[in-house]
Amino acid sequence: MSAKPLFKKMAIIGVGLIGGSLGMAVIRKNMAAEVIGLGRNPGLLELAVEYRSIHRYSTDYSAVSGCDLIIIATPVGTTLGILSDFAPYISPGAIVTDVGSTKAAIVEGSAPVLPEGAVFIGGHPMAGSERDGINGADPYLFENAFYVLTPSPDTPARCIELMTALVEGVGAKPVIMNPAEHDLSVAVVSHLPHMVAATLVNCLFDMPGGEKKSLLAAGGFRDTTRIAAGNPDMWRDIFITNRKCILEALNCFTGRLQEFQKAVEDRDEKTIYELLGRARNLKNGMPARRKGYLPALWEIVVTVPDRPGIIGEMAGTLGRSGINISDIEILRVREGEGGTIRLGFASESEQESAVYLLSQSGIPSKKRL
Amino acid sequence: MSAKPLFKKMAIIGVGLIGGSLGMAVIRKNMAAEVIGLGRNPGLLELAVEYRSIHRYSTDYSAVSGCDLIIIATPVGTTLGILSDFAPYISPGAIVTDVGSTKAAIVEGSAPVLPEGAVFIGGHPMAGSERDGINGADPYLFENAFYVLTPSPDTPARCIELMTALVEGVGAKPVIMNPAEHDLSVAVVSHLPHMVAATLVNCLFDMPGGEKKSLLAAGGFRDTTRIAAGNPDMWRDIFITNRKCILEALNCFTGRLQEFQKAVEDRDEKTIYELLGRARNLKNGMPARRKGYLPALWEIVVTVPDRPGIIGEMAGTLGRSGINISDIEILRVREGEGGTIRLGFASESEQESAVYLLSQSGIPSKKRL
Repeated sequence: MSAKPLFKKMAIIGVGLIGGSLGMAVIRKNMAAEVIGLGRNPGLLELAVEYRSIHRYSTDYSAVSGCDLIIIATPVGTTLGILSDFAPYISPGAIVTDVGSTKAAIVEGSAPVLPEGAVFIGGHPMAGSERDGINGADPYLFENAFYVLTPSPDTPARCIELMTALVEGVGAKPVIMNPAEHDLSVAVVSHLPHMVAATLVNCLFDMPGGEKKSLLAAGGFRDTTRIAAGNPDMWRDIFITNRKCILEALNCFTGRLQEFQKAVEDRDEKTIYELLGRARNLKNGMPARRKGYLPALWEIVVTVPDRPGIIGEMAGTLGRSGINISDIEILRVREGEGGTIRLGFASESEQESAVYLLSQSGIPSKKRL
Repeated sequence: MSAKPLFKKMAIIGVGLIGGSLGMAVIRKNMAAEVIGLGRNPGLLELAVEYRSIHRYSTDYSAVSGCDLIIIATPVGTTLGILSDFAPYISPGAIVTDVGSTKAAIVEGSAPVLPEGAVFIGGHPMAGSERDGINGADPYLFENAFYVLTPSPDTPARCIELMTALVEGVGAKPVIMNPAEHDLSVAVVSHLPHMVAATLVNCLFDMPGGEKKSLLAAGGFRDTTRIAAGNPDMWRDIFITNRKCILEALNCFTGRLQEFQKAVEDRDEKTIYELLGRARNLKNGMPARRKGYLPALWEIVVTVPDRPGIIGEMAGTLGRSGINISDIEILRVREGEGGTIRLGFASESEQESAVYLLSQSGIPSKKRL
């Protein structure tokens, strides 16, 4: 980072998971000389100061006066209402952005409200956590995540550059899209899957079978429906604000599903295979790592005894030889007996050394191909 | 385990992921005096001997002669054909079981083939791995997984007891169901979700938007569609053998989806909220941990510098104080800078000691509530 901060005075309205994480990253990287948090709950705002998400806070919208960047990080249904509430205090030349999951309605709605000389650039960081609120805030939340910006054709280039620098500064990858393109994309990759996941869960409990059936809901069902645990207030707002694109995506989905249904009804093995094979190939061609981490890892699987310190012993053995563990996951554990741990390394030579060093310590492992 | 093995001579037909993992667990726990692997590929069977999944192998079905347990662990579409091939060699009193994902067709089909005095008990271990074949085999694969057994009303109690002991011996939890009940349950919890996941992936690539859109497919989409990468040969067989139950589950799903669609079309916020809220409540009431690990963990989130040995340093600090890390996950990492790691402990006192010990070492962490 340059010595001079990107922004002199930044306001974050709504210091929850996203706003709080943005603030933490901004302060750590010295991207703004001053970061002010705005909200209604002084207790949470104080916590945000303590966590170094913001430097100070206010519960009064007039605090946005003099800010050169204002980030609205409240639920998507509230964005336009809040914008018109604080609009009178916006200083000329200020950039206003949001973090909402839909963009067309907000970008259109912002134009009549915004004072002369201020610029609105829609934003959507594609990052989240299962934890809501300031307690879930994490300066690395945006690491390697895509962060969509939706400038309009007449947005000044200087403003786009500043926003791009901010996005890169918090560790994310900027993607410039127009609002309509963004909204259809997130309808397909996020809103439709949410609708489908919620429906699968509702259906599980509609069907006969009771207790035992939900017992059998193993890893596959749990992964497929994980997002159904999302906040229904937030998601209702999304279904309302992105209604048109979601219905378009749903239309595509039901057409494809009917095709699959017919193939099963007709015992049409060839079509079933084609539908499954196409999905598998497309799926395998997509970026696989969930946490946006290093693209290719060299992995080993270790079978370890379950005793205090075994992870430390193993990691210590590797660390003393200068081998860095890039990823670690406990796959399976039997209490009091042992388990299976996956380790990932950034290079093949580290992978090979790790297998050798662990075997010298009596810990068996094998490479994952 | 008692000193005397449950079985004298066990055959495993098909020593892949499931068969190989069963064999490993059986041999480690001394549940059978002798484990013979059967298959067509001597190279893979030799690997299975090397991995201690089996004691010895044969490519000839006559090897099942004298076995008191025969496990068919081949793809579900091949089970009945293989059973009739080796049926002439089954010894009186032997138990035959399978590991297929559908049960009614196999249980019915086995009756006319089985010789007098042998007993068929359908089995379905609800465990899997993203890795196929003997190279993915893991003695802990069944740890805490449900393992369905589908005896018939006239199955001798002794045989059910033996199978239950085997299931518990490999670390799984036995669930007794009738075949029809099993097939409808797995249609809802596994086969329908697979169909939906494959359709979501196909739909993503049908819709306009290209490259950028699939870039935006973040964690939610990837989790929801993870199972779509499954083997299409295996899944085609499942859609054919469990056709009736899958269509019944699909019927429920499409009805519910139409209800959701109508609510979005009508901008009916109340119904959208109810559908989402019901799904969230049901989802949150389901067992949450993916790997069937200890139900409640006391967790902390640690912000660490990224340097070789940091995990070892951290784990070593805890291990030297007798604190066992029950779960570990790298949440986010910025290369060359640092990251966020989640640690889980079995008790609150370990959680508290961990936060204290790490802070003494200059590593900040906070409890997860």
